[in-house]
Amino acid sequence: MRKVLKNCLVVSEDLSIEKRDLYVEGERLVDFVEGDIEDMNSMIVIPGLINTHTHAAMTLFRGVAEDVALDEWLSEYIFPRELKLTEEDVYIGSLLGFMEMVKNGITTFVDMYFFPHAVAQAAKDIGIRGIITRGLANVDGHGSEKLKECEDFIHEYASDPLIKGGVGPHALYTCSNDYFKESVEVAHSNNSLLTFHLLESPSERNNFKKRSNIEPVDFLNSIGAFDEKTIVAHGTHLNNEELKLLSQHKTTISYNPTSNAKLGNGIAPIPQALSEGVNITLGTDSAASNNSLNLFSEMKFGSLIQRACKEDPTIMKVEELFKMATYNARRPLPFDIGKIESGMLADLVVINPNKLSTLPKKHFYSHLVYSFDTTAIEKVMIGGKWIYDGDFCTVDICEVMERFEKTVDSIDSRI
Amino acid sequence: MRKVLKNCLVVSEDLSIEKRDLYVEGERLVDFVEGDIEDMNSMIVIPGLINTHTHAAMTLFRGVAEDVALDEWLSEYIFPRELKLTEEDVYIGSLLGFMEMVKNGITTFVDMYFFPHAVAQAAKDIGIRGIITRGLANVDGHGSEKLKECEDFIHEYASDPLIKGGVGPHALYTCSNDYFKESVEVAHSNNSLLTFHLLESPSERNNFKKRSNIEPVDFLNSIGAFDEKTIVAHGTHLNNEELKLLSQHKTTISYNPTSNAKLGNGIAPIPQALSEGVNITLGTDSAASNNSLNLFSEMKFGSLIQRACKEDPTIMKVEELFKMATYNARRPLPFDIGKIESGMLADLVVINPNKLSTLPKKHFYSHLVYSFDTTAIEKVMIGGKWIYDGDFCTVDICEVMERFEKTVDSIDSRI
Repeated sequence: MRKVLKNCLVVSEDLSIEKRDLYVEGERLVDFVEGDIEDMNSMIVIPGLINTHTHAAMTLFRGVAEDVALDEWLSEYIFPRELKLTEEDVYIGSLLGFMEMVKNGITTFVDMYFFPHAVAQAAKDIGIRGIITRGLANVDGHGSEKLKECEDFIHEYASDPLIKGGVGPHALYTCSNDYFKESVEVAHSNNSLLTFHLLESPSERNNFKKRSNIEPVDFLNSIGAFDEKTIVAHGTHLNNEELKLLSQHKTTISYNPTSNAKLGNGIAPIPQALSEGVNITLGTDSAASNNSLNLFSEMKFGSLIQRACKEDPTIMKVEELFKMATYNARRPLPFDIGKIESGMLADLVVINPNKLSTLPKKHFYSHLVYSFDTTAIEKVMIGGKWIYDGDFCTVDICEVMERFEKTVDSIDSRI
Repeated sequence: MRKVLKNCLVVSEDLSIEKRDLYVEGERLVDFVEGDIEDMNSMIVIPGLINTHTHAAMTLFRGVAEDVALDEWLSEYIFPRELKLTEEDVYIGSLLGFMEMVKNGITTFVDMYFFPHAVAQAAKDIGIRGIITRGLANVDGHGSEKLKECEDFIHEYASDPLIKGGVGPHALYTCSNDYFKESVEVAHSNNSLLTFHLLESPSERNNFKKRSNIEPVDFLNSIGAFDEKTIVAHGTHLNNEELKLLSQHKTTISYNPTSNAKLGNGIAPIPQALSEGVNITLGTDSAASNNSLNLFSEMKFGSLIQRACKEDPTIMKVEELFKMATYNARRPLPFDIGKIESGMLADLVVINPNKLSTLPKKHFYSHLVYSFDTTAIEKVMIGGKWIYDGDFCTVDICEVMERFEKTVDSIDSRI
């Protein structure tokens, strides 16, 4: 498993683009090795994109109900289907989701859902890297079993090269305060990633204060929920003081602009977060609320909505947006990813710059963010293996699509 | 030139989808004809999308400067380049722009720029349908020549099957009031489409009031600028009373959500406009301020930004967004387009619904708006001719891209 990729135009962490060869040994980039030579013909090589918040299996619910209020969407359409899901359903939904991600240049994900072994199997069958957090909630009275399942999963996958377990208490409104605290302790004692939804929708702050007589962020801070290994998903309604606190704790936000917009949850305070020094990354959320799994469109839309809202075209820089999808996202994660350097994992996306929508070629970063068409993605490598080269190298796409359609029909027939 | 397209899944004006054959004779759909039979294998056929506001040649400036203030962007980067453009440059820029549009399912455009003959040549070389308005302004003292060029162009193309001329006074801030009035009269006397930028940026209203001591919309109304053949581009800062007036006059708005956002101009009042009954259509604006020429992303983003801003996921319906890109846009235009019916022009987009991002197939309209990937576009027909089938049928894409790159380098060397 030694590969030499000749004539790459390599994107570096300082965003310079340099023509050189890349050497891969096993799952990592190395300084030099002799191996199978492949000519990359001056294609541009960027680090694989990192999707810091998703629920891959929810591709099963893509398009189920549009244009309805959030409560109705959840209670009438999503929850009734989720109650009927089998482990097999979650496997096939995750599989399709991961395929779409890979095709769109995503090489690492952070997932929160149930049936974590099915999610892991789907990821391993494709060959995508990820953190899988068993979604935790105790409103249904089954909190302890879930937490045990979560911790067992972490142990089971501790030495897996692609998959790690993490801890995902769903949100303050689906967990009791004691249960949330217990979840945080499990993350700490296992030295694992912690991730949860926070202030995603407008009503969450007041609902929590009414219940607990304390601000949500103050409660979370009191139980040690914010540190370098924490990813706060959404954070749509965080205020400046709270952003400052997250910055002090080196906590990461997963900015999910499309989902926040589509569900009518609002616009996250990203320019303020950036000026407070918070580490900002990007997430697609699920295909039920996006409905794509494409970080190039998150970069674009994540910029546009801030510029429109503030009537200021200078507040979201092209380079910063690209870093959100790559370099920034490696910080909370236990993988050597997000940049192309010797010693790092070989997670690479090969881009053909010679496409209608990415001309003139001289403004490459601008096109990556504002006019990228994923047909420009020629190949995707994860951990030293080619996973996608226009077709999928690890699975039969037609077979998966057929099985997926049957699964959706079956779920719909159960409700 | 008789064609039978067997086994189409045809999208009708009421948005039902029905399996049937389509018959094409010359440039139009007919009830029945014998001809070359092509099996469409249950692909979905939608009417070609209509881009009601663009400046195609500005693909030449895609990515030129991001993240700078609007004034600086125009005065430092765009205007200096435009001053140096030749007719040949405008041809090649328009050609690439139209190719990108066709590839993305756009079959009709409304363009405003200069060198209208070069724009028309590019459109005819590709085979795309459009209204070409010679952009009119008299701040530089050459207003009359431009207006004459505009009117001559209208006459010259009066009987062209693909191209019509229109009248495009650029904006109130680049035309004197008398000149704007004269332009409107030219549109009326030629029974032509009239289109202009209106209240695109936040400062335009007050600047005009200071100059003319009257509200912009009141002035335009007094000179008869609003009627069924008028397309107002942007309209970002129109108020409710003004929307009511536009509705009464059956005037169309071209909603350009991406450009409005990217340039920091704000968010157009589309939910209000819809409830006042204004005819809303979609425009990409130019690749310099978008930077794509893709109405599928305008549908998605045009919905998302309204939902986010109003924190309401019910205000932009999937079906309404699709109509903005098709049926609504035919109203002000002098072509029988925007729906698939006998007697209409055969402008068709053939979609393969069997793609990762458009599964499960049952929610087709939702996917068109929220997860569409233009690789699902298999073929594009304009006026009864296949223009695109994965490759371009009318031009050599490699040759155009090479010439385009050279042109951009040449322009940049002139400034």
